Amino acid sequence: MNWYMQSGNKSDVAISTRIRFARNLNGFKFNLNEKQDIEKLENKIKDNLYGIGYGLKFFKLKDMDNITKMSLVEKNILSPEFVLKKNDIGSILINDEENICIMINEEDHLRIQVFSAGFDLENTLNLAIELDEKLGKTLGYAVSKQYGYLTQSPSDCGTGLRASVMVHLPGLKLTENIEKVFHAIGNFGINIRGIYGENSKSIGDIFQISNEQSLGISEKEIVKNLKVIVEKIINQERSARKLLGKNTIDLEDKVYRSYGLLSNCRKISLNESLELLSDVKLGVDLGILKEISDSKVQKLYILTKPANLQKYFGNTFETIERDYKRADLIKRILIER
Amino acid sequence: MNWYMQSGNKSDVAISTRIRFARNLNGFKFNLNEKQDIEKLENKIKDNLYGIGYGLKFFKLKDMDNITKMSLVEKNILSPEFVLKKNDIGSILINDEENICIMINEEDHLRIQVFSAGFDLENTLNLAIELDEKLGKTLGYAVSKQYGYLTQSPSDCGTGLRASVMVHLPGLKLTENIEKVFHAIGNFGINIRGIYGENSKSIGDIFQISNEQSLGISEKEIVKNLKVIVEKIINQERSARKLLGKNTIDLEDKVYRSYGLLSNCRKISLNESLELLSDVKLGVDLGILKEISDSKVQKLYILTKPANLQKYFGNTFETIERDYKRADLIKRILIER
Repeated sequence: MNWYMQSGNKSDVAISTRIRFARNLNGFKFNLNEKQDIEKLENKIKDNLYGIGYGLKFFKLKDMDNITKMSLVEKNILSPEFVLKKNDIGSILINDEENICIMINEEDHLRIQVFSAGFDLENTLNLAIELDEKLGKTLGYAVSKQYGYLTQSPSDCGTGLRASVMVHLPGLKLTENIEKVFHAIGNFGINIRGIYGENSKSIGDIFQISNEQSLGISEKEIVKNLKVIVEKIINQERSARKLLGKNTIDLEDKVYRSYGLLSNCRKISLNESLELLSDVKLGVDLGILKEISDSKVQKLYILTKPANLQKYFGNTFETIERDYKRADLIKRILIER
Repeated sequence: MNWYMQSGNKSDVAISTRIRFARNLNGFKFNLNEKQDIEKLENKIKDNLYGIGYGLKFFKLKDMDNITKMSLVEKNILSPEFVLKKNDIGSILINDEENICIMINEEDHLRIQVFSAGFDLENTLNLAIELDEKLGKTLGYAVSKQYGYLTQSPSDCGTGLRASVMVHLPGLKLTENIEKVFHAIGNFGINIRGIYGENSKSIGDIFQISNEQSLGISEKEIVKNLKVIVEKIINQERSARKLLGKNTIDLEDKVYRSYGLLSNCRKISLNESLELLSDVKLGVDLGILKEISDSKVQKLYILTKPANLQKYFGNTFETIERDYKRADLIKRILIER
């Protein structure tokens, strides 16, 4: 099972962890645009693919079908900008588990990404560092003694590291403490944003917490700082849920109504399903809803998104038809063992 | 099973039929208030109870507990005015099936009522006439050659007959034709009103259709006229449903969402349950929802009302607790075979 359909450490709140390194290669211009330069870079990578290992396979974006590309965007494995704006020049290295994905010719020559289920910054960082070192030795990075790794955007300079954790914060939302958390986090050089919808108005209460700074601080320090903040947020979210749990029947009612709608509807929009899934996940994580597991909820989060939905059915659908198919898919997943 | 929990003729639209005769006895003042007069009337009835038959039993309102009385009001077997204002002087004759109930000292000495499931005016009228003749012979009615049966209110004079049919009109409501039907019916001396809520704004789309006139026209004529109108409304409702049925998935979605909420909620108000039951009944009657039968829907309509709910659990509950118990009861009824 792929990482994004699994439960991990503290996955009652933390959905997934991502480590990303921005890297550029010596001997190539930044921001490659010329066909021959791009080919040279791609060939250099392809020629060393066997040596790099990890089961990584090379694909050009323009050779991949749209649904597959958008399904990777929906899993947060590819950035939307990469797929939409760099389709002609971008390529990727990805393994079958999809826990490693390197975007080639995104903003930088390489965007090395490693993913894990749940809250797992150290292990994810360690794997990313291992992979990064191997790639550095093989391909040769552009590094400055003063600035560290050189990147297209100055904000990525230094370590080139962006660490992020995806969290589910329905308790803080329901107890109306989410704004406070947003406010407090800003003071620590940490960024939080809603994944669907805007900021604290996030649909489905899923947020991404990540470091802002990547220069003048070590990788370990960045991850340590982020870890402290995420742990605080996890504890605050758990306290909020305890507070909600005092009125058990009202919470049960909310959870089971959403479950009842999800399992019985005949058409449903993405936004509505995200909102109902949020209640269902909360119910599962609090042990209220015993009918399904957390990993089934994760599966639903992924498969109900438009491209993954179409990939599941092996067909393309108009928006309105997708709402019918989404309801159908949810019912199938809910009843499967 | 009692008539109010059964399906009957055309019960996709018609829920139940009621025939009522208003009668007063010779040798008694109208509008009895004196204790000794009331006792005299009650004794006359009780002395003849065996001769009347039909398994009728005599109860004084003041000897009955409130929950039982209110549960009969909720089934439309007793009028709320009777229970609330005539508690000290009123009494009833009722059989175990509860399809015959005579209110004694309501507005008239006797309010003879016969009930059936579904649309069944003739049989219900025949039983009511049979019962009425027997009571008339035994007790002696006050009759005028000019006005027919004499009653407390002039509007009941003549036949003293009120025939009514309870109908479920979600199709006319959803297609926004209900106001037209209300308007048209007024021209035929027929009255229509919402059972819950006000008139055409009825909660749960249940309406009572009855005759306005009872003087200068025979019992058979009254019932024949009402029958024609009710049949027209049933046909209009069925046409409206056919129209809705063209968009099958949207209708299925509405029906199953309501079913999902009903079967999963942990608390629910009476109004919400009436609204959801209306969708569920529509789904059952159109063959969309196959999980439950129409008679189970009837059972839910009755048992979810406050007094019947408390009677079911054999306990009294505060309003908020009733909402929890109502959700519990719905789940129990839905899963029972």
